[in-house]
Amino acid sequence: MSQFDNVSVVKQANIYFNGKCVSHTILFPDGTRKTCGVIFPSILTFNTGAPERMEINAGVCRVRLAGEDEWKTYRAGESFDVPANSQFDIETLETLDYVCHFG
Amino acid sequence: MSQFDNVSVVKQANIYFNGKCVSHTILFPDGTRKTCGVIFPSILTFNTGAPERMEINAGVCRVRLAGEDEWKTYRAGESFDVPANSQFDIETLETLDYVCHFG
Repeated sequence: MSQFDNVSVVKQANIYFNGKCVSHTILFPDGTRKTCGVIFPSILTFNTGAPERMEINAGVCRVRLAGEDEWKTYRAGESFDVPANSQFDIETLETLDYVCHFG
Repeated sequence: MSQFDNVSVVKQANIYFNGKCVSHTILFPDGTRKTCGVIFPSILTFNTGAPERMEINAGVCRVRLAGEDEWKTYRAGESFDVPANSQFDIETLETLDYVCHFG
């Protein structure tokens, strides 16, 4: 599925880390939300409030979840889950195109 | 109006000019489309196919339309129109948040 249908889109973008991450917020009829975004090559640390599933549509990244030593690599078609009130380090090797699902 | 309702959103972002411009495409029930995006500080030249109205939600830019000598400044709450099959130079002074309406 290349698009989300019957949704609302917040006009104003979310810009993080001096533009290394840019996303738009999508609101669904059931009250859930997702963001569609990109992350440019960088090493960043994101904090979570709600649990997140990061679905990678394009690009390559390495991710280390809080409390883990290991970095795992994710590519287009893959996803990773981050618990609520946690954080993860992400090294973007090739510009990521992602959808972040908030649980 | 801070959001678009009852629309479809293309998941994959549009990335132009090495990331200086990032947008997401919004599809409307009447068949029209818009993009919600950002332009980081830069001097860029955009080409148009369809006519465009650029609505500035945040930031400051200077714009010179094809065939004009004068640069005009646009800020949040303002917009400018570009004819079909034309181009414009845009100098973004403060990161732009915009909606581009395709006619």
